[in-house]
Amino acid sequence: MHLPQCVELYEVGPREGFQSETNPIATEDKITFVNELSNAGLKHIEVTSFVSPKWVPQMADAEAVLAGIERVPGVTYRAAYLNLQGLERALGNPVTLDGSLVLSASDTFSKRNMNKTTREMLDKLPEWIAAYQAANIRVKQMGFMASFGCNFEGYIELEHLLKLMGDVINLADSHGEAIQKVKLADTMGWANPEQIKRTVCTIQDKWPELNIHLHLHDTRGLGLANVYAALQEGLWEFDTAIGGLGGCPFAAVKGAPGNISTEDVAFLCEQMGIDTGLQLDSLVECAKLAEKIVGRELPGHLAKGGLLSNIRPNSWMQVQGS
Amino acid sequence: MHLPQCVELYEVGPREGFQSETNPIATEDKITFVNELSNAGLKHIEVTSFVSPKWVPQMADAEAVLAGIERVPGVTYRAAYLNLQGLERALGNPVTLDGSLVLSASDTFSKRNMNKTTREMLDKLPEWIAAYQAANIRVKQMGFMASFGCNFEGYIELEHLLKLMGDVINLADSHGEAIQKVKLADTMGWANPEQIKRTVCTIQDKWPELNIHLHLHDTRGLGLANVYAALQEGLWEFDTAIGGLGGCPFAAVKGAPGNISTEDVAFLCEQMGIDTGLQLDSLVECAKLAEKIVGRELPGHLAKGGLLSNIRPNSWMQVQGS
Repeated sequence: MHLPQCVELYEVGPREGFQSETNPIATEDKITFVNELSNAGLKHIEVTSFVSPKWVPQMADAEAVLAGIERVPGVTYRAAYLNLQGLERALGNPVTLDGSLVLSASDTFSKRNMNKTTREMLDKLPEWIAAYQAANIRVKQMGFMASFGCNFEGYIELEHLLKLMGDVINLADSHGEAIQKVKLADTMGWANPEQIKRTVCTIQDKWPELNIHLHLHDTRGLGLANVYAALQEGLWEFDTAIGGLGGCPFAAVKGAPGNISTEDVAFLCEQMGIDTGLQLDSLVECAKLAEKIVGRELPGHLAKGGLLSNIRPNSWMQVQGS
Repeated sequence: MHLPQCVELYEVGPREGFQSETNPIATEDKITFVNELSNAGLKHIEVTSFVSPKWVPQMADAEAVLAGIERVPGVTYRAAYLNLQGLERALGNPVTLDGSLVLSASDTFSKRNMNKTTREMLDKLPEWIAAYQAANIRVKQMGFMASFGCNFEGYIELEHLLKLMGDVINLADSHGEAIQKVKLADTMGWANPEQIKRTVCTIQDKWPELNIHLHLHDTRGLGLANVYAALQEGLWEFDTAIGGLGGCPFAAVKGAPGNISTEDVAFLCEQMGIDTGLQLDSLVECAKLAEKIVGRELPGHLAKGGLLSNIRPNSWMQVQGS
């Protein structure tokens, strides 16, 4: 058990965060926000989503946002897409694509979110692989929504997740592709730290070369404890959203906490001596900007609690070294 | 490294939570709230504080609240006090007293909060011991405010905390008393999980018989990650406040998150198979009552995210056992 030396945070606020806001956000505000995120040192930013403007009007300006942002060298600008039409649009825009194959570990959630069972989604993956290969993109990644639990199905059994993972790995292999990374999403905030550990350890035992990336939600308050559990198992890639933007349409209350907060996760890491490459004070400014843009208080803590470095410039790592 | 089988949560909402509210809270509301807390299964409730009504008008009704609450057998009803006059009042009221000796690990915080240096507080402890002994109360506990860090002094060095702990243990011993428990308070929300672990392990090595009780704040979002770190070291006693009541007068923003939330901590524990003896649904009702009483939204997550048991009655422990 060892903590990693550095972590990489993948910012999903402009996409997953803004997508869950009902009030329209100006394209100009989205562009300014993305620019501030790259200024704060974030190296991976999910800028927008290629979804039907009929279903998600907030993302109708996907192309305009991507065209308007400053491109900082070394930063990957990304976009989400849920179907092959979305992938088609993504391919026509300046975004980094992972060649990712995505399923839901919960069949009911799959039907509700994608209008297809998990099996039907799995059967469609060869089409995805073909589309990626036609665009000269290697298929290196797979992702699972509702990996830990689902409001419609309860806890997801680990055996079920492992079976699905094996299916996708084998399918990719049979098409000449090698999956190198899995992104596990706790879409509805079900995971607990021990479950994270057991899941990660079991996957690491089974596929030692597979990199595990977590997408966590703080719906029920366990987000940062889950990050800490994952760090203890050596994980170093997490999706986060500034201010804890985002939400969960399936939570008990509209406005329930969303994604784990970028600045809080960065703070957790930095306080334990794990390098994030991020400026905490700039992240706090981004959180304040996000609150201004969405017009409400966001759940992230650091902007409210205050940076320690503003108070005293020592760090716990320095103190423990003394 | 092992998680405990059960934990005990000490509810501090009616005292530390209400104390930080500026709008007056009716005595009747306080009584109703305490009664609901004991109904939810909480076994230790800090009901009020014996402080000067001149400084803390919110606590002026301490005696009335203690006289008005229902007394559930098996529940300890407690009160805080900061000086010997407060102890005198506590002795005249029906409250459980731990015979605790309290210092601040930060000298500056000590001066600001108690108007005395840590040294001056230490020099006064014989008077505290005498007062407890005169009342036939054994001195079994010590507590340290700002054990991990301080907004005025930065991180507190562990060596400094250990030195103070040794001083109090020796002092008690020289008066025929044996300290059995230490309560470490992260008063201003500085602790991180690795620091918690290092602190706990070092204390356990030095004083293996000493029980360690944590009082954590979620000021900067690390509260539940800190609880998880402590659970991993076998700790099983925590102060918590329903809804995350409380605050920190030293935070960057008024209204910054306060104590770690009782229902979120209980949820964390129960999801990992650790028994709390608490009804999560009743705790959520208490959190809603607390929001009604203080007239604002509280930071606790579970009331917003929703109980898992309302969705599907399985538990992760059942699933992992299958």
